[in-house]
Amino acid sequence: MSPKALDYESLNENVKKVAYAVRGELYLRASELQKEGKKIIFTNVGNPHALGQKPLTFPRQVIALCQAPFLLDDPNVGLVFPADAIARAKHYLSLTTGGLGAYSDSRGLPGIRNEVAEFIGRRDGYPSNPELIFLTDGASKGVMQILNTIIRDDKDGILVPVPQYPLYSAAISLFGGSLVPYYLEETANWGLDINNLRQSVAQARFKGITVRAMVIINPGNPTGQCLSISNLKELLRFCFQEDLVLLADEVYQQNIYQDERPFISARKILLDMGPPISKEVQLVSFHTVSKGYWGECGQRGGYFEMTNIPPQSVEEIYKVASISLSPNVPGQIFLGLMVNPPKPGDISYLKFATESKAVLNSLRRRAHMMTDGFNSCRNVVCNFTEGAMYSFPQIRLPPKAIEAAKKAGKVPDVFYCLKLLEATGISTVPGSGFGQKEGVFHLRTTILPAEEDMPAIMSSFKKFNDEFMEQYEDHKGYSRI
Amino acid sequence: MSPKALDYESLNENVKKVAYAVRGELYLRASELQKEGKKIIFTNVGNPHALGQKPLTFPRQVIALCQAPFLLDDPNVGLVFPADAIARAKHYLSLTTGGLGAYSDSRGLPGIRNEVAEFIGRRDGYPSNPELIFLTDGASKGVMQILNTIIRDDKDGILVPVPQYPLYSAAISLFGGSLVPYYLEETANWGLDINNLRQSVAQARFKGITVRAMVIINPGNPTGQCLSISNLKELLRFCFQEDLVLLADEVYQQNIYQDERPFISARKILLDMGPPISKEVQLVSFHTVSKGYWGECGQRGGYFEMTNIPPQSVEEIYKVASISLSPNVPGQIFLGLMVNPPKPGDISYLKFATESKAVLNSLRRRAHMMTDGFNSCRNVVCNFTEGAMYSFPQIRLPPKAIEAAKKAGKVPDVFYCLKLLEATGISTVPGSGFGQKEGVFHLRTTILPAEEDMPAIMSSFKKFNDEFMEQYEDHKGYSRI
Repeated sequence: MSPKALDYESLNENVKKVAYAVRGELYLRASELQKEGKKIIFTNVGNPHALGQKPLTFPRQVIALCQAPFLLDDPNVGLVFPADAIARAKHYLSLTTGGLGAYSDSRGLPGIRNEVAEFIGRRDGYPSNPELIFLTDGASKGVMQILNTIIRDDKDGILVPVPQYPLYSAAISLFGGSLVPYYLEETANWGLDINNLRQSVAQARFKGITVRAMVIINPGNPTGQCLSISNLKELLRFCFQEDLVLLADEVYQQNIYQDERPFISARKILLDMGPPISKEVQLVSFHTVSKGYWGECGQRGGYFEMTNIPPQSVEEIYKVASISLSPNVPGQIFLGLMVNPPKPGDISYLKFATESKAVLNSLRRRAHMMTDGFNSCRNVVCNFTEGAMYSFPQIRLPPKAIEAAKKAGKVPDVFYCLKLLEATGISTVPGSGFGQKEGVFHLRTTILPAEEDMPAIMSSFKKFNDEFMEQYEDHKGYSRI
Repeated sequence: MSPKALDYESLNENVKKVAYAVRGELYLRASELQKEGKKIIFTNVGNPHALGQKPLTFPRQVIALCQAPFLLDDPNVGLVFPADAIARAKHYLSLTTGGLGAYSDSRGLPGIRNEVAEFIGRRDGYPSNPELIFLTDGASKGVMQILNTIIRDDKDGILVPVPQYPLYSAAISLFGGSLVPYYLEETANWGLDINNLRQSVAQARFKGITVRAMVIINPGNPTGQCLSISNLKELLRFCFQEDLVLLADEVYQQNIYQDERPFISARKILLDMGPPISKEVQLVSFHTVSKGYWGECGQRGGYFEMTNIPPQSVEEIYKVASISLSPNVPGQIFLGLMVNPPKPGDISYLKFATESKAVLNSLRRRAHMMTDGFNSCRNVVCNFTEGAMYSFPQIRLPPKAIEAAKKAGKVPDVFYCLKLLEATGISTVPGSGFGQKEGVFHLRTTILPAEEDMPAIMSSFKKFNDEFMEQYEDHKGYSRI
């Protein structure tokens, strides 16, 4: 009998090619172990609330009121909600036609797109046009839509930093394009070297690939670096010379743990550079409510903003967005709240500021604890997490471990991460899921476990790692050279 | 200068091919007119809350509490929320790890997938496996994912009813497949004729197209028909013979306005039929919180359930779902509430039952008012809306009107609908957006305007239509033949 359309043999090959390690073998094994009763620390996904981060109070009050608008007429509402949350809920409801249960325009509610535009204008010092801002169910959906718009076939290449967040590799596979890697420099704290970029483009061209777009993730995922102004200028000049659309994944813009390089958007630098570059380089920038000190991943709120994209193309993007009708409306309101938080003088300001500062300060401390913890381990070296939510230590696996992995039919870093999971319950993602140079191994972990749990987690990691190294090192091995 | 990657000329051709009339020319013109201050009645999308339908109270109470879990510890919470809503919020929060702000599993929260499985089991009389249920951001996203999994290239055909909901044509274009139309019989109240199906498949084969799947929309959109048991059996047998995956769009299963043919799921009929058919036909069924008496479109909650899909394919679908991490969690909880509403004896039962019955009864009355209204108009004939949320009258355009449309550079039904919009503010979708037989014209409107507004809307429609006909009919024309 011939295979049916949903039998594995006859599925869309692009679907089969997709690899998505963040929820791959390690995650599946961790889920199994959890079902069997083992305590698992899920550090595979940047999912702060799952690891105990509490939501900010004010936005949740506003959204609760928007969901239950009948409370606004309840004489007791003032007993459980502050007046500014009530006012804000009324404001957001007034931006909808029919409340949270109605589809919005497929680009999102115009009133919230205005608030986003004002935020971008304040942030960059250049006004932003709300007609060029589309709200999305989280940033990933926006990235996927833009890649789908760009990619025509496997001769279309997208430059992606390696190590990279696998959303990019997965989406490029799904849409049948070609990923063109450019390597970040681990020894230069995962900086971007423009020569690597040039080399990657040249190699791709040699293979007949037209490089059409370039992805940057700033701050970096999984690598945590913050791009410098000169780096951003260089790469924008490069995009101009090579006619590349720049996709700027800036979802971690609030997550900065050093003071030398505060976040600066690719858009600001682009506009600072002036014509012709500022008028020519096509830029799509992404942001979300899932990261920052919000961490509202489950709400799926995000946006993308387009610069220098012709109106006819914007219309095409609008048309495709229309197929799924409307991004979820509560997520849109979260986004409105994120770009327009309580201001000094508001009833809820102090509480909001205290809560958000506490989250950010703790993340900064955890970034240090984790880097220091990894660097104290045998055969582990780790750059400091300058930003974002991840630590990406290099694990120098001894030859015997690599051999043992091969025998077990596993990629070496998968082998290491599985052992780590079984021994400690710490669920990480092997570096191979993000891409790494040949023969070099990493793992990614979030810096999100609760601060008070961090010492125990790091010492449990150290114990496992050092025993692992002891077991597989022949004491004349790799690390002693 | 060569075009850049996001210039119109160089976009993905499949993106450009997409047509999506529900938010097409008419919608855009309506939005413009609204900006200019004209009162627009948006009946282009099944968006009940936008037209004044109030949300059901109990689910909104539960979701508000889930969004503001700190209220659960507030001594005053009992003053504004009933005890069963509080209990239910605690229940749903217990199904999450970290509340609504945490990503769930990419298939949705296991606990809610269990509730969905129990609902399907009760509904069909056959147990359902929660591992084969994936929660989605609305049903459209699920449909798109399954079509993307099936379609490999333009030689893969998908049978779609015509007139059809343009999600299908749009998604098939986007993924580069071929739409194979099968015509519904307007004279048989939009019934499905198996001979039309056979003919469509034969014609497609002749063109070298492999038909891989068949879509049914039951109750129908835009056509409102409810499929009979014998119709369902016939088409399942047909899917078995032709090795087609059946995609059963059953999002209107609560929207039934006649008593002869209550909703019966394709899954129930499939399993009733016994082996080999029940074991062989691959079926994916879709449902949502956007329709029914819920109408919670803006929340984007939906699911699909798979029958007879091999585990390896389910894994591939899971993997691709993982790329966008997680459907929005509030939407998942709405879905849980929909499949598990208050029961007799619960504090909120009476209110919930009263509210939902009021919505459904009013929809039934509106279905009659609309059909009768259309049938009272010159040159308009309209089947009764047996189910779903739409009326799809045939507009018999006189030759002079068709000529005038041609002169204006418009498709005739677009011409008619634009005139209707300008004259009355009623924003409909031309039949050409759904597909119709050559030379026959329709429009789609929802039956959702508020019941008290309906008489005025229908008489404003009648006034426009009859004047239009008067203007374009030469009094020896079409309708007098």
